[in-house]
Amino acid sequence: MLIRLGYDIQFDLPAPVSFVAMLHVHPSRSADLREPDLMQVDPAISLDCYIDSFGNVCTRFDAPAGRLRLSNNTLILDSGEPDAINLSAVEHPISELPSDVLRYLMSSRYCEVDRLSGIALDLFGHLPKGWSRVHAVCSWVHEKVTFGYHFARPTKTALDVFTERQGVCRDFQHLAITFLRALNIPARYATGYLGDIRIDIPPSPMDFSAWLEVYLSGRWWTFDARHNRPRVGRVLMAVGRDASDVAITTSFGVANLRHFFVVSDEVVEEASAERILSGQN
Amino acid sequence: MLIRLGYDIQFDLPAPVSFVAMLHVHPSRSADLREPDLMQVDPAISLDCYIDSFGNVCTRFDAPAGRLRLSNNTLILDSGEPDAINLSAVEHPISELPSDVLRYLMSSRYCEVDRLSGIALDLFGHLPKGWSRVHAVCSWVHEKVTFGYHFARPTKTALDVFTERQGVCRDFQHLAITFLRALNIPARYATGYLGDIRIDIPPSPMDFSAWLEVYLSGRWWTFDARHNRPRVGRVLMAVGRDASDVAITTSFGVANLRHFFVVSDEVVEEASAERILSGQN
Amino acid sequence: MLIRLGYDIQFDLPAPVSFVAMLHVHPSRSADLREPDLMQVDPAISLDCYIDSFGNVCTRFDAPAGRLRLSNNTLILDSGEPDAINLSAVEHPISELPSDVLRYLMSSRYCEVDRLSGIALDLFGHLPKGWSRVHAVCSWVHEKVTFGYHFARPTKTALDVFTERQGVCRDFQHLAITFLRALNIPARYATGYLGDIRIDIPPSPMDFSAWLEVYLSGRWWTFDARHNRPRVGRVLMAVGRDASDVAITTSFGVANLRHFFVVSDEVVEEASAERILSGQN
Amino acid sequence: MLIRLGYDIQFDLPAPVSFVAMLHVHPSRSADLREPDLMQVDPAISLDCYIDSFGNVCTRFDAPAGRLRLSNNTLILDSGEPDAINLSAVEHPISELPSDVLRYLMSSRYCEVDRLSGIALDLFGHLPKGWSRVHAVCSWVHEKVTFGYHFARPTKTALDVFTERQGVCRDFQHLAITFLRALNIPARYATGYLGDIRIDIPPSPMDFSAWLEVYLSGRWWTFDARHNRPRVGRVLMAVGRDASDVAITTSFGVANLRHFFVVSDEVVEEASAERILSGQN
Repeated sequence: MLIRLGYDIQFDLPAPVSFVAMLHVHPSRSADLREPDLMQVDPAISLDCYIDSFGNVCTRFDAPAGRLRLSNNTLILDSGEPDAINLSAVEHPISELPSDVLRYLMSSRYCEVDRLSGIALDLFGHLPKGWSRVHAVCSWVHEKVTFGYHFARPTKTALDVFTERQGVCRDFQHLAITFLRALNIPARYATGYLGDIRIDIPPSPMDFSAWLEVYLSGRWWTFDARHNRPRVGRVLMAVGRDASDVAITTSFGVANLRHFFVVSDEVVEEASAERILSGQN
Repeated sequence: MLIRLGYDIQFDLPAPVSFVAMLHVHPSRSADLREPDLMQVDPAISLDCYIDSFGNVCTRFDAPAGRLRLSNNTLILDSGEPDAINLSAVEHPISELPSDVLRYLMSSRYCEVDRLSGIALDLFGHLPKGWSRVHAVCSWVHEKVTFGYHFARPTKTALDVFTERQGVCRDFQHLAITFLRALNIPARYATGYLGDIRIDIPPSPMDFSAWLEVYLSGRWWTFDARHNRPRVGRVLMAVGRDASDVAITTSFGVANLRHFFVVSDEVVEEASAERILSGQN
Repeated sequence: MLIRLGYDIQFDLPAPVSFVAMLHVHPSRSADLREPDLMQVDPAISLDCYIDSFGNVCTRFDAPAGRLRLSNNTLILDSGEPDAINLSAVEHPISELPSDVLRYLMSSRYCEVDRLSGIALDLFGHLPKGWSRVHAVCSWVHEKVTFGYHFARPTKTALDVFTERQGVCRDFQHLAITFLRALNIPARYATGYLGDIRIDIPPSPMDFSAWLEVYLSGRWWTFDARHNRPRVGRVLMAVGRDASDVAITTSFGVANLRHFFVVSDEVVEEASAERILSGQN
Repeated sequence: MLIRLGYDIQFDLPAPVSFVAMLHVHPSRSADLREPDLMQVDPAISLDCYIDSFGNVCTRFDAPAGRLRLSNNTLILDSGEPDAINLSAVEHPISELPSDVLRYLMSSRYCEVDRLSGIALDLFGHLPKGWSRVHAVCSWVHEKVTFGYHFARPTKTALDVFTERQGVCRDFQHLAITFLRALNIPARYATGYLGDIRIDIPPSPMDFSAWLEVYLSGRWWTFDARHNRPRVGRVLMAVGRDASDVAITTSFGVANLRHFFVVSDEVVEEASAERILSGQN
């Protein structure tokens, strides 16, 4: 299955401002790209790339005052398989975890493990360990929190989500991540493309999406406390401890968002399309 | 100048528990060690070391139930010079900062840059850039916040310090770090040994200490919003975005602290001592 | 000057629910009413009125499941004068304040005086006491905080407003009230009608409005950190320590707001209209 | 049973400062006093008394710079009965509650009903209504929160207690009150004397104590989430929505506490003592 990916993001900048963007496909998916994954910047300015401590591709640049446009249009091959399920995946004791996984047990800006550990143990401490417990955490968040774009705010933490019970994508994941870390289960925040592919929901304006990854049985697994069901077509862009590590764009000064458009659509390949056409005869 | 370093930290563990410790001298000071920097663990258990994403030495181990004792006794060479002052050190524009410095501009668990940026700009936005502005931030914190051990609590953030105006070492640094990042000045949290060496203050029970490092003129400089004056004899153990990255010990389960002793004393070398003795004749 | 007042508020109630409403003109304005101030309730249900500890008229009732409509249409005489200004009004020492004014110095749900007193003293402690200091507080809030309906949320406190610098009417007043109390100046929250009367701003959908009252020179004076200039046509409904004391409606169960319309318009009297007409001949 | 009540509270005042004190027995207990309940103030200064909107006796005075001493020594008759238990006491629907009880359902400074209502419903919403549910709330708080004087801080709210699980007397009551209000059960904060009378606990330095009152079956009942068992000898001083309404002393300026001593001891009357002696013969 092929997925057409792209975005068109425009800012008005009252003064020159430096940016860091995380608008490339994650290195773990580079081999799947069928077209170059190049961020276009208008006006044309020089870009620097680097890999941050989480392994994400970051782009730095200094934008002049005026309108700034970041855009992209690429194509990626996807398995077409929904998120994997492994009911027998196990939690590891701390001693078995790789050292570079340990940081996903700690508190971070939006995930105050130190403040929510009591309630996490109350709610989930008694459950059998493993996949089903992680699923129980995600289901709790999915059921208790109401989704709404107008509930978004940049300072909202997991504790806020827990008390207000309202939020957007990232808020659902922050609360689930915090509960999981409190149970000594490594959990990290993931952001990327997620189109409405092969699911029967009304189409909605596309946005980048957030989900979470949980370390069980020696690898990271995708969970999603917002949708709480397997989805097809996630394309990872960045992982981190929480949203503060993986902002799509960070501007070190005023940048007024004027336009925001994201696309992530399944592509019917030409060959397939021909077959469909000939089949009609 | 030689400094005798050591600690004796004891926990009672009701059940086996995994630990991560940051109880070694930072690799940047390894060459100064005059005796091995070996953490003794009693009972004897196997230890694993790794370097975290900030460059700190971390030690992992699984402790059995019962009394756990971590101790050390080592010797380090120190310049004997107080913290450097460079009044002409400059702030860099974002575009000049090394990529691995950028993360020290972001919000973190205890440093909510997103919540304190308005007040930081109100207080310090109009000041001339450079060393003097960093000093102004540290002086503000030093003057407004009252020190007291009973003001410590594990969940206290920079915003709490700002509103409560009370705290311990780490609280002073968290507030200063947050203000600095809001001004687009990279700042990071540092922890290590700091004895009462060559200063005229009443001796107090030793503890590990926290300070901050600020990136100016192409390198990191030591500042200290708690003491707000140059000190002799800091020995760095770990750096990170805030205290949540550099906890001296992290236990993934219950660990009751029973004993805590730290030493960091200037050593009069034997040869010197002999000279002093013979001089007395 | 006559002002036509009214509202039409509709809820959908999935189940029977008890309400308390503060939808009457404050007793201090009763004598100005030119038509009865009667809240219509549809469906017709029995209402109980009482005066709360702040002197406000409250209405209690038990609404059945289904659509609930609260409406009113009344007429009030107004001086047509803008909010009074008295540059020589003085702050009182605590000892001179009436006892029933003291509660307007304390912390309340949305006004955490205990958390903002340090910053209030930093910002305003050095200013000359009296009217000009109160005005300075309101001006600071007016200038630093950005208005936007989408910034509203029910749990937002003065500290949140201070850090986020965004809010609606009530948020502006909460922050100003908190600063004033921290300076030992009694301040209370006021809610009522405020139309766009005799000011040159683009007409906007009406809402109830919030302002504040400050105790100087032996009486309460109207200030408004949102608009920060004298206005004509305020009609007080309720006062309290903050918004939690004077909610327009409180439902003790689920009540989904479906319609909200408020009117507060200057009326050209018939007699006057006739004179104007005859004057044209 | 007679109880000897008293206190000796001393402040150092760097400058003159105004005070409000709530250091008298509540009017509901006035008839039980066997000696006058007079607060002694040294130096002698004029005092003003008033009754606040909650019905508490308040004392206002202006203290000069220097040492200030507030003391009292009085005697009260007590039933000697432990806190009443009525397992059949019922919760009222909102519509049955007296109007002056409604304010004890709202959010207040330390009781953020708006932030804890979701968790309150999760924890207690499914329980049978009435006395047993109130008891369940108090037991939950009693079991989950750890008592310690060093956990006290003036800004600590119910939400903080819920997340930190540590606190003093008032913190236990604030959390229980908040949960109860979220369940539409009126609950208020009470402060007064509570000696270690007729219970087998090690004697501890006396302090004033806090408990809560809950409205069931048409009256207020005493509960105590800190001790969670009936006690003998409570002498009420003040009630309010939370601790911000009933501070023992409020100073409108700097007041450094130097001495704090409270006594609340059962008195063996002389007559009784004689009878006991003669009975021994």
